[in-house]
Amino acid sequence: MSDHATSVCSHSNDPSTWMLAKGYKFAGVVSGLRSEPNRRDIGAIVSEVHASAAGVFTLNRVAAAPVQVSRRRVPAADIKGIVCCSGNANACTGAQGRSDAELMGVTLGAQVGVPGDEILIASTGIIGRPLPMSIVGAGILKAAKALNDTPDALNDFAHSILTTDTGIKVVTLEVNLAGAPVRFTGIAKGAAMIGPNMATMLGFVLTDAAIAPTLLQEALVKAVDRTFNCISVEGHMSTNDTVYALANGEAGGTPITSHGMHYQQFEQDLTRVCSQLARAIAEDAEGASHIVELLVEGTATEAEARQMAKTIAESPLVKTALFGADPNWGRIVSAAGYSGVVFDEKDLSLHLGPYLLFDQGMPVPFDEAVVSKYMKDNRHLTAKVTLNHGNARCQFWTCDLTLEYVKLNAEYTT
Amino acid sequence: MSDHATSVCSHSNDPSTWMLAKGYKFAGVVSGLRSEPNRRDIGAIVSEVHASAAGVFTLNRVAAAPVQVSRRRVPAADIKGIVCCSGNANACTGAQGRSDAELMGVTLGAQVGVPGDEILIASTGIIGRPLPMSIVGAGILKAAKALNDTPDALNDFAHSILTTDTGIKVVTLEVNLAGAPVRFTGIAKGAAMIGPNMATMLGFVLTDAAIAPTLLQEALVKAVDRTFNCISVEGHMSTNDTVYALANGEAGGTPITSHGMHYQQFEQDLTRVCSQLARAIAEDAEGASHIVELLVEGTATEAEARQMAKTIAESPLVKTALFGADPNWGRIVSAAGYSGVVFDEKDLSLHLGPYLLFDQGMPVPFDEAVVSKYMKDNRHLTAKVTLNHGNARCQFWTCDLTLEYVKLNAEYTT
Repeated sequence: MSDHATSVCSHSNDPSTWMLAKGYKFAGVVSGLRSEPNRRDIGAIVSEVHASAAGVFTLNRVAAAPVQVSRRRVPAADIKGIVCCSGNANACTGAQGRSDAELMGVTLGAQVGVPGDEILIASTGIIGRPLPMSIVGAGILKAAKALNDTPDALNDFAHSILTTDTGIKVVTLEVNLAGAPVRFTGIAKGAAMIGPNMATMLGFVLTDAAIAPTLLQEALVKAVDRTFNCISVEGHMSTNDTVYALANGEAGGTPITSHGMHYQQFEQDLTRVCSQLARAIAEDAEGASHIVELLVEGTATEAEARQMAKTIAESPLVKTALFGADPNWGRIVSAAGYSGVVFDEKDLSLHLGPYLLFDQGMPVPFDEAVVSKYMKDNRHLTAKVTLNHGNARCQFWTCDLTLEYVKLNAEYTT
Repeated sequence: MSDHATSVCSHSNDPSTWMLAKGYKFAGVVSGLRSEPNRRDIGAIVSEVHASAAGVFTLNRVAAAPVQVSRRRVPAADIKGIVCCSGNANACTGAQGRSDAELMGVTLGAQVGVPGDEILIASTGIIGRPLPMSIVGAGILKAAKALNDTPDALNDFAHSILTTDTGIKVVTLEVNLAGAPVRFTGIAKGAAMIGPNMATMLGFVLTDAAIAPTLLQEALVKAVDRTFNCISVEGHMSTNDTVYALANGEAGGTPITSHGMHYQQFEQDLTRVCSQLARAIAEDAEGASHIVELLVEGTATEAEARQMAKTIAESPLVKTALFGADPNWGRIVSAAGYSGVVFDEKDLSLHLGPYLLFDQGMPVPFDEAVVSKYMKDNRHLTAKVTLNHGNARCQFWTCDLTLEYVKLNAEYTT
């Protein structure tokens, strides 16, 4: 696995740097679904051959129609593509919405010669409005004609799924895996900070590796748990969150069909791609002035570490202190205290950046001006909570709660 | 129980309207613990005779020293009084903090002729600083000398426990119970919105009813669950939250020693007092421009209703929409969806004020200008979420997330 050390896995918005996974075509076109003129709003991904497919979806009981329709379709061995619209979430739209989502799949499927249930569907945008299917249908036909395997086509797709994002999020990776050079192409949108009435993060990872559908699903669940589930802005879970992975085997490597070394490497690679996409989302959080990497370590289980990190990351008192460059360790320690993780105060220590502020249950005297300056001067901050209960850990990304966030989310009117 | 309809139970800041429970003396004095000159910071309550006592405390694993010390002392039949300091939370202060909290009890106890463990302790204020015990000790002696059973003395006590509150919170109630006219005197501070580095709501309910300690504890737990646990601003649980109830029997009624009609009435009365105090806290939420009464009804259990209400109440997207007078039902419905309560979208309806916005899973067309005007014109809003799973319900109070809140909590520096 020495390839890992040298392979490049990073977020880039420059198409000339992208090495795309083999056998995938992309499109992103303007259908007129959105009020902004010339804004791309219909995206499509098609694999040359049928691909293994996996999906992870929002746990919200109010799930959008495309989620309700697509989650029954994965894991699967015979997925041909994905169709997505932005500007309308197709959520809270009842039976008509489910029928519209199915029709999106049927429309793209007809253009590429497969039944509708071999297409996965995603949507993001306003909740509670029926999809204008004549516009969406015409847009899907236009997208099918535009499908191409070039970086420019991927760039169009990456733009077509955006809502309040300030830029596209694309991550590419090349590694040697199971005897072949294998590539991953990852695209995301979102919404670490959920935008005004937009309520979604979407992720798509395409690879030319060959892997059995159930193993792809298992790897995706693990990767999502450690990446997309470890970013948070305000903890408002959307109706449309979706991450898909397709693996079409076009790289020509040996298919991964069991939990061996190759599966482990695949899971790691997929996690790296998802991790970069998740960070790109956190970076783009609306209104944020600080991005915080929060490490919780020394818990008995990874779930406990994530639970504590999420609780700290979502405390408005912690987030306003970060905004104010206030080294208010009491807010962080007390948020850890109500996270539901059982611990004694004397088991807990806290670093903010390089500064130890709380040591095994007791505050450490420190120069507040120095620590506040560290917070003021750096857009990227780190915080580390250490327990002594075990070796589990969780790396979590969050941002601060700013005046700009409140303005953006209050001034919007439905 | 017809007395209930006519008895007065409301929050009032005017001492001349207060009818105090018999047999209690109060004091609130200036010790110099706080930086503001002439600000009362040490409070004491003493019962003429030993009282039944109950307490409900924060569930935060990082619990302040007075919480650690006092929670072992209740329920009890032999409590003589309560001592409280504001300005310093005595939290994250280790063994020294626990010893200081015990010393506060011993100091007041010595003045009124009882051992220290017959006194309950509470603190609120800055976390992580040792209590200056020479100042606190002198303050407690001063308070013991000032003890009095007049409304003015209660007024002093009510002021002595405040931190960032804009005013005192006092509720009085007189009812006939178990053959005697019984009075309740309730005092609270806080912090529906936790103030800058202040992290506490405190509540004290004194009654001259006679009730066994275990029944008093049971009634207090139920009352707190339905009142103080049904207010939230940002969901950050404090290290010091405490609610005490004392019952000294001085009204002369028959002691309540079993779960009969009298117990039921007592529990109801105590809940009414706590409910008014909780509302007074929500009203005083820092920076809030709207106070929202959120009713969730039609759930299978009260716990489910509270869980859903709390999730909606704590969503920053819901709270910013309330601030912006935006009738953004999608944010409320989707917050219900991730509350953890299992339901189908078609089981859920939503009213905002008198307006039905979402009816059994589908949005209802409405005039956005009209509903937004309702939100703009009223400081007090109501929202109702209806499920069809049962007859349980929860009434919850929250407030909006405003620019002022972010300013207050970001600009503060430790």
